[in-house]
Amino acid sequence: MRITYEEELSLVRGILLAADFPEDDAERIAQVIRHSDFTGVYSHGLSRLTRYMRQIAAGSLNPRPNFRKVLDSGAVMVFDGDNGSGIVSLCRAYDETLERARQFGIAMATGRRSANIGCGSYYGWRAAEDGMLALVCCNTYAFTSPFGGADRLIGTNPIVVGVPAGREYPLVLDMSTTNVAMGKIQAAEREGRAIPADWAKDRDGRPTEDPSRAFSLTPIAGHKGYGLAVMVDVLSTMLSGACFGTDIGLFTRLEKENTGFCLILIDPSRFMPLEAFQAEVDRYVRMMKDSRKAPGVDEIYLPGEIEYRKLKSMRESGLEVSDRLAAELTELAVGLGAAEAGSDLAGLVEKFRA
Amino acid sequence: MRITYEEELSLVRGILLAADFPEDDAERIAQVIRHSDFTGVYSHGLSRLTRYMRQIAAGSLNPRPNFRKVLDSGAVMVFDGDNGSGIVSLCRAYDETLERARQFGIAMATGRRSANIGCGSYYGWRAAEDGMLALVCCNTYAFTSPFGGADRLIGTNPIVVGVPAGREYPLVLDMSTTNVAMGKIQAAEREGRAIPADWAKDRDGRPTEDPSRAFSLTPIAGHKGYGLAVMVDVLSTMLSGACFGTDIGLFTRLEKENTGFCLILIDPSRFMPLEAFQAEVDRYVRMMKDSRKAPGVDEIYLPGEIEYRKLKSMRESGLEVSDRLAAELTELAVGLGAAEAGSDLAGLVEKFRA
Repeated sequence: MRITYEEELSLVRGILLAADFPEDDAERIAQVIRHSDFTGVYSHGLSRLTRYMRQIAAGSLNPRPNFRKVLDSGAVMVFDGDNGSGIVSLCRAYDETLERARQFGIAMATGRRSANIGCGSYYGWRAAEDGMLALVCCNTYAFTSPFGGADRLIGTNPIVVGVPAGREYPLVLDMSTTNVAMGKIQAAEREGRAIPADWAKDRDGRPTEDPSRAFSLTPIAGHKGYGLAVMVDVLSTMLSGACFGTDIGLFTRLEKENTGFCLILIDPSRFMPLEAFQAEVDRYVRMMKDSRKAPGVDEIYLPGEIEYRKLKSMRESGLEVSDRLAAELTELAVGLGAAEAGSDLAGLVEKFRA
Repeated sequence: MRITYEEELSLVRGILLAADFPEDDAERIAQVIRHSDFTGVYSHGLSRLTRYMRQIAAGSLNPRPNFRKVLDSGAVMVFDGDNGSGIVSLCRAYDETLERARQFGIAMATGRRSANIGCGSYYGWRAAEDGMLALVCCNTYAFTSPFGGADRLIGTNPIVVGVPAGREYPLVLDMSTTNVAMGKIQAAEREGRAIPADWAKDRDGRPTEDPSRAFSLTPIAGHKGYGLAVMVDVLSTMLSGACFGTDIGLFTRLEKENTGFCLILIDPSRFMPLEAFQAEVDRYVRMMKDSRKAPGVDEIYLPGEIEYRKLKSMRESGLEVSDRLAAELTELAVGLGAAEAGSDLAGLVEKFRA
C-alpha cells in the first residue's frame, strides 16, 4: 500500500502527540522523518518510530525535554537537549544559529545530551532553502573501532554539508564515515547473504564476510575515514560536554545516547549578493554535469541530486509501506490510543488494516 | 647526506631570498617546507623548490605579491593572494583569523588567487599550539573527475583539522580526498611498476593499472570522496572568488593556479577553560590508545601522531637528502647566486657537492 506526503506527516505527528510529545516538537520530528522516507533514506523514516517508542518506554528518550541554551558567547552557543529527540535539539539550535550567522557571517552551535538527529540531509536542504551554507556533524551510538582496534568506541559519525544553488538543485552531502550502516548488515543476515569483506570486522577486529559475526563497522578509506570520524567526535562532543567512546549509552540496551552535534552556518550573502553566489554554484553544477562521462555512465550527479529528484517523484507517487511496517505502525498507533474513531489517524489505520 | 633542522631552514630561506621573496615571507615558507620534510611529507618539502622557481620563471608565481584583505565583515574575511605563494597567503590569513576567533569564538577566512599551501598539517599543528581548533581546506590543480566523469575538473582537495591536546600529541588530520597523489603514480611509472586499479583512471574514465595511462586520480570511498571534494571546492572558491574546474590553470603548463582556501578557527576557551578542553582530548586519546587491538597491530595511533613522532625523531637524526635532490638544490642555489663565498648557503652547498 501507499501513503501520500500529507498522510505521512499526519501519521507521524499523530503517533508522537499520543506519545506525549509537545505539538511543535511532533511537527518538527514528523517533517524530518517524512523527508527521510521521501528521499529514499528509509532507515531514518517511519521504520524508526518503533525504536523511538521503545526508547521512551525504557526512559532513555525524553518526549518533553527541558531544552536549554547553556552557553551563549559571541558567535558560538551550546545547547543541552535533556535527552530529548536529537531532531528537536538540532532543529531548535538551527533556528538560533541562523540568526547568529546573519549577524556575524558565521556561527556555530554544539549540543549535548542529544540523540539521533534523523535524516542528516534534512538540515542541509533546510540551510540551502534559507540561503545558508551548513556544516553539520554528530556522533552516534558506537559502532566502529579506532583504526587497528577491536573495541566499539566510535559512531558512524555522519558529515552533512548543504549549499544553496539558484536554478539547480542545492548541493547536499550527507555521508557516514563508515562504508555501510549496521542496518545493511542486519538485512544480509536476515536474508542469509554473505557480506563484502570491507563492511565489518568481528569481535577481534578481523574482517569478516559473515554478517552474524559482524561487530564493528569498517570506516571509509581506511585511516582517512577513521581520522574524519575522530574529528567528528571532537567537534560534536568536546565543545558541548556530550559523551564519547565508552561513555556513550549502549544501543543494544536502549540506553540514553548522550551524544552530541556540531552545527556551523555560513552566510554567503556576507561575501557577495546571494544571487551571485547561487549563480556560481549553478555554473559549477553545469560544468560537472556537462563534462565527459566514463563508459556506461548516463549522467553525472552532484551530491544530493539523486535524493532531491526522488523527493520530487515520490511526492507524486506516494510512499510504499510494506505489510510488515504497516502492521508495526498499526500496533503502535492502536497501543498509544492514537487510532480511536474520529481521530486523525483512524482512517489511515483502517487503510493499513485493509 | 643529512642536513639538520636548522640547516634546512637556512637553505630554503637563502634560496627564497635570492629568488626575491621578502624576508618575512621567505621565513614563513621555509618553516612550512621544513615542517613537511621533518614530518615525512617529502612531496611538499625541499623537492618542491625547483617547481616553485619554475613557476616564478613562468610568471605564474609572484614572489612579491600585493596581499590584500578584500572583505572584512564580522567574523568573516576574504583575502586576495595576488598569485603569491599559497603558504604566505594562508599564514597571513591565519594571523588575522586567530584574532577574530578570539573575538567571536569562531571566525573564517577564505582566499583567492592563492596557490599551493604546502604541507597542510602545518596549519593544524600551528592552530593546536595556539590553543585553537582549525578546519582548513583548499582546492588545487585539477587532477580528478566528478564521479562517473572522465574530465579533470576537481583537485586533490585536502581537508585539514587540528585540535589542541594537553599532555598527548595534538590531533591533526591532513588528508587529500583522492586515494593517492599524482607523485605516487609518477614514481611507479619511473620504476616500471603497475599501480592498483583504484588509484587512477585513464583519459576515458576507465580504471587503469598502467601508470603511463593514468589521467585522473580516483577519489576516496567512491561518491563520498567525490562529495567531500565538491564541498571543498565550494568552501575554497565560491566564497572567495577563486577559480574552479576548467578555470584553474593547468599544472602541466605551469599556469597560475588561481586556487582558493578556506580557514575556520574555533576557540575552545570560549566554551570552557582551555585546560579542561585539552584534558578531554587527552582522555579521548588514552581511551583509543588503550583499547583492544586487532591481530597484528602493536599500537593504535591518533590522527597526526605518526607525523609528530617522526618530527621528534628527525630533529635528532636530521633529514636524509638524496644525491639527486642535493644536485638539484645545488644547481638552484648556484643559479640564483645564493651560494657565493661568505653567504649563508656557501657551506651547505659545499657539503652537497662533497
